[in-house]
Amino acid sequence: MESHEKTARVLYDALATGDRAALDTVLDPAFVGEATEGLPFGLGGSHQGAEAMIRDFWWAIGRHYRARAEPAEFLALADGGLLVLGRYAGTARDGGRALDAAFAHVLTFTDDGRIAALRQYTDSARWARAVEPAARSTPAGQRELRVVRYDVTGGVATIELDRPEAGNAIDPTMVEDLDEATFRAAHDPAVRAVLVRGTGRSLSVGGDLAFFAGNADDIPERLRWIIDRYHVTLDRLATLDVPVVCAVHGALAGGGLGLAHVADIVVAADDSRFAVGYGAIGLASDGANSWYLPRLVGMRRAQEMFLLNRMLTGPEALEAGLVTEVVPAAELAGRAQKLATTLAAGPTKAYGHMKRLLLASQDADLSRQLAEETRHMTASGATDDAREGITAFVERRRPEFRGR
Amino acid sequence: MESHEKTARVLYDALATGDRAALDTVLDPAFVGEATEGLPFGLGGSHQGAEAMIRDFWWAIGRHYRARAEPAEFLALADGGLLVLGRYAGTARDGGRALDAAFAHVLTFTDDGRIAALRQYTDSARWARAVEPAARSTPAGQRELRVVRYDVTGGVATIELDRPEAGNAIDPTMVEDLDEATFRAAHDPAVRAVLVRGTGRSLSVGGDLAFFAGNADDIPERLRWIIDRYHVTLDRLATLDVPVVCAVHGALAGGGLGLAHVADIVVAADDSRFAVGYGAIGLASDGANSWYLPRLVGMRRAQEMFLLNRMLTGPEALEAGLVTEVVPAAELAGRAQKLATTLAAGPTKAYGHMKRLLLASQDADLSRQLAEETRHMTASGATDDAREGITAFVERRRPEFRGR
Amino acid sequence: MESHEKTARVLYDALATGDRAALDTVLDPAFVGEATEGLPFGLGGSHQGAEAMIRDFWWAIGRHYRARAEPAEFLALADGGLLVLGRYAGTARDGGRALDAAFAHVLTFTDDGRIAALRQYTDSARWARAVEPAARSTPAGQRELRVVRYDVTGGVATIELDRPEAGNAIDPTMVEDLDEATFRAAHDPAVRAVLVRGTGRSLSVGGDLAFFAGNADDIPERLRWIIDRYHVTLDRLATLDVPVVCAVHGALAGGGLGLAHVADIVVAADDSRFAVGYGAIGLASDGANSWYLPRLVGMRRAQEMFLLNRMLTGPEALEAGLVTEVVPAAELAGRAQKLATTLAAGPTKAYGHMKRLLLASQDADLSRQLAEETRHMTASGATDDAREGITAFVERRRPEFRGR
Repeated sequence: MESHEKTARVLYDALATGDRAALDTVLDPAFVGEATEGLPFGLGGSHQGAEAMIRDFWWAIGRHYRARAEPAEFLALADGGLLVLGRYAGTARDGGRALDAAFAHVLTFTDDGRIAALRQYTDSARWARAVEPAARSTPAGQRELRVVRYDVTGGVATIELDRPEAGNAIDPTMVEDLDEATFRAAHDPAVRAVLVRGTGRSLSVGGDLAFFAGNADDIPERLRWIIDRYHVTLDRLATLDVPVVCAVHGALAGGGLGLAHVADIVVAADDSRFAVGYGAIGLASDGANSWYLPRLVGMRRAQEMFLLNRMLTGPEALEAGLVTEVVPAAELAGRAQKLATTLAAGPTKAYGHMKRLLLASQDADLSRQLAEETRHMTASGATDDAREGITAFVERRRPEFRGR
Repeated sequence: MESHEKTARVLYDALATGDRAALDTVLDPAFVGEATEGLPFGLGGSHQGAEAMIRDFWWAIGRHYRARAEPAEFLALADGGLLVLGRYAGTARDGGRALDAAFAHVLTFTDDGRIAALRQYTDSARWARAVEPAARSTPAGQRELRVVRYDVTGGVATIELDRPEAGNAIDPTMVEDLDEATFRAAHDPAVRAVLVRGTGRSLSVGGDLAFFAGNADDIPERLRWIIDRYHVTLDRLATLDVPVVCAVHGALAGGGLGLAHVADIVVAADDSRFAVGYGAIGLASDGANSWYLPRLVGMRRAQEMFLLNRMLTGPEALEAGLVTEVVPAAELAGRAQKLATTLAAGPTKAYGHMKRLLLASQDADLSRQLAEETRHMTASGATDDAREGITAFVERRRPEFRGR
Repeated sequence: MESHEKTARVLYDALATGDRAALDTVLDPAFVGEATEGLPFGLGGSHQGAEAMIRDFWWAIGRHYRARAEPAEFLALADGGLLVLGRYAGTARDGGRALDAAFAHVLTFTDDGRIAALRQYTDSARWARAVEPAARSTPAGQRELRVVRYDVTGGVATIELDRPEAGNAIDPTMVEDLDEATFRAAHDPAVRAVLVRGTGRSLSVGGDLAFFAGNADDIPERLRWIIDRYHVTLDRLATLDVPVVCAVHGALAGGGLGLAHVADIVVAADDSRFAVGYGAIGLASDGANSWYLPRLVGMRRAQEMFLLNRMLTGPEALEAGLVTEVVPAAELAGRAQKLATTLAAGPTKAYGHMKRLLLASQDADLSRQLAEETRHMTASGATDDAREGITAFVERRRPEFRGR
């Protein structure tokens, strides 16, 4: 029986990591899956064969949700089967709303210990709601903004955090508004650069601890709700095709640091300061700090920030590689605006190719990156802007780029 | 025949890298494996089918040993089969004792060139001895220490290299003692931080060349014996859940550098000095230098250290990112002790989550790391220390962490 | 029908990335492939079964060419099949000549949507020509050099770019000559170090824009031709077993930067300057800039160089980690020569092991790198130079290395 639990754990791990080979190992080829009928996107119903289940159910889920089945209890059944209780957690891909639904899975096994069948019971209404824009009555891109200001002028989309009385702390309203504003920027073809900045004394002091503290027993659940939503925003900014400029003033702390991390160009005021702060409150990391900090400031500085709560001043952040440049506080707004305006007049397609190459290079080996460069370089060479750029260079005049 | 050798090489490569897809390519589905009967853990005997062989033999080996089958000769047999001679090399996972056993494999092939069967002949006593604590009469955790001092006070485990007459050079006794001391620290729930330091004039001058030189023909074998054992210690320290502080004085060279690399916080005396030194003696790299140096000091500095034997002073090491801070030599012991004591009073669980995230970030892409952060952050949010930390923050008082 | 196109796209993606699991998903096990008869290396003809097609055709292509099938159009056929039009692009592995051949693939499908057969029509003469040294009448290693000087003295191969009137810009003649010179260095056992340098005012201003501008409509094709060939040279230098020294004077820009990136030791004149320059002409990246710059100078500096066209002076390049050392311009030639001569007298085999370890470390996790170190360290320990090095150390004399 214990070995059935072990097999089931391999299944959930393989689903979480997309490990196709492991799935093949634990699933009987004649596997039958019975999914909850009411699931959206035609996910519900019967799937015959391991192949069909993987292709039409598990992989199909992955196309619509960024979700994970988290088993909590494994209960042996009298007939040799296993009852697994747990929850699905994640977000819908389109719009990024949270998915949080309990499940019961009944697993049966073949004589040789493989999984023969899985019957799934889950709250399909929650799955539907996560992709249902009507829940907030307006679809993404047309929702009202409350603590974020959004404006597009001259090809620059400005996203301004505006909850100054709370240091632009990240609470549910803030993550919803950041989601909405970045969604708009990502879907507006007129946008050729994005500027992220904030009002008040600080760009952002990080997660709103008052929100978590209000209900101490719910800390993990509230953390997950906020982080799931916030990470969608950061992922969107990090993979945006147009350049992103971030202007940092005052404090930038905890998960708030992610707003700077995902930008391409970060300008900081000379009196700004940077700290993760998790150690002081017994938490780990969010906002992509654990990915960007070792890459930007090096492992030693990252470890010092995490374990000893080291704070960096603006000049130290520049020296360490966390920001691109430091300017006097009074010049911050002007400098950031100028950079965004300049970038919005550049060869937008080529910038997109550069950005994708730089992100891809983080986990490519040299051979693969050389092949990627050939592909992106050739594609950039086919744009109007490349023709204009090369011609202008040979004619010794300034190029005029149109972003296409 | 040559193509059979090629197929066999694919097999050994696939086993070394865990390449499941390649195994499926070269093994006939009806494959039969006959393993040496005397192998421990029930590994011996017959395995019917490629699936069973992979699951019950090769993967099972991986659970008990960190080992590799290294083929040396491929000899064609009259009946179309292949005799492969070589050796298994590695360590047992539990306790980390060395495995080094010759093997003969007889392979037969199907008409279409796949591997139909493998008969294994190996020295099963060596496999047993590698996992047999009785060999040294005392199990790991209770062995006598000779050149390392170990002490636990106030939650801090101090591991002190104490072979001052030889500059704490790493010889067989030193690696055995480091293995024992780190094993104790890793298994004692009272330990909430580890401090690594040394007596005498230097923390460690690296591998003990006198040991290798004594018997020049045995250099490769002696290198392997020491490194296999030493790498287990470094791997254990690098993945330890509690913070590790390393105090560096005098010289730290060659493989000895690994003791600093795997620490979270490294304090160095201002008169310390760092060098790999391999080029001067015609060797390559060990002690994880080739992994950590490019990450800590950058590729250009790492190449200079390796190819031109560049030495770094303490201040240069700080500037380059190799160490966290530099203090006057007279203050080193006190500063390192203070850091370890401070960390031992921190939110231990959260530190463990941070450490796993920082290590995982090295080979994760951004999307995956965001998901990992959500998981670790939520888990840290469920600890007593997080509740205390958040409450104390809101109540504007100092938190009292208990490490759980 | 649309889903057939989707399946076909999975096929081409899987071939491009070597994704074996994905191939298994889309190919019917009873798949039949009909390859163009005239293909070289016995690639042509019929392949029965998915397994055979993968092993004897697609993987066999990979052994002879570094090529990619790039589909451009997907046309539905009346009988339910699909006609895919596109081109093969890449280079032959042996000699590195360009492959560029149109193809038509006729795909048929099983009832359950898998690919049942593929008939391939392609210009097999182009495949043959790409591996035909007779096309230039002399094989690689014996071709005439026109804009590159090559010389081997005292174990040092000097590769000197000598197109000073054009700032050593990279045009078709330059890439062919660099290919030839690096091929010679890589295949001459007398070579124990390589020195890359240039004549005139600059080491290299990058790609020759006059060549691209001459025929604006052909920009993507000309880019691809040059980059494919140039990347072979860079890949060869990056993986060369002997140390590579690069001497930088004047400007080093665009793809030309790759010559410094792939070197192990880079000496720059104090009046040198470094810039990528792509943004000014609407292009993306080549010459491995997008892989090396984030690793050498950090992500923030790399983003600034790409998006804001930031230029670095020699001292800034040293500070940022782009070069190993900076010397007065008048001393550059002497210093670079001295470094190459010193390295040519070192333990060549050990240097090769170090270089492979440093490159491998870029995409290995810690555990894997520890295993690699054990392997390379043990191998280096078996060389004559290691025996000499260790013995000399113990005898307190200077070692004499012979490079074996």
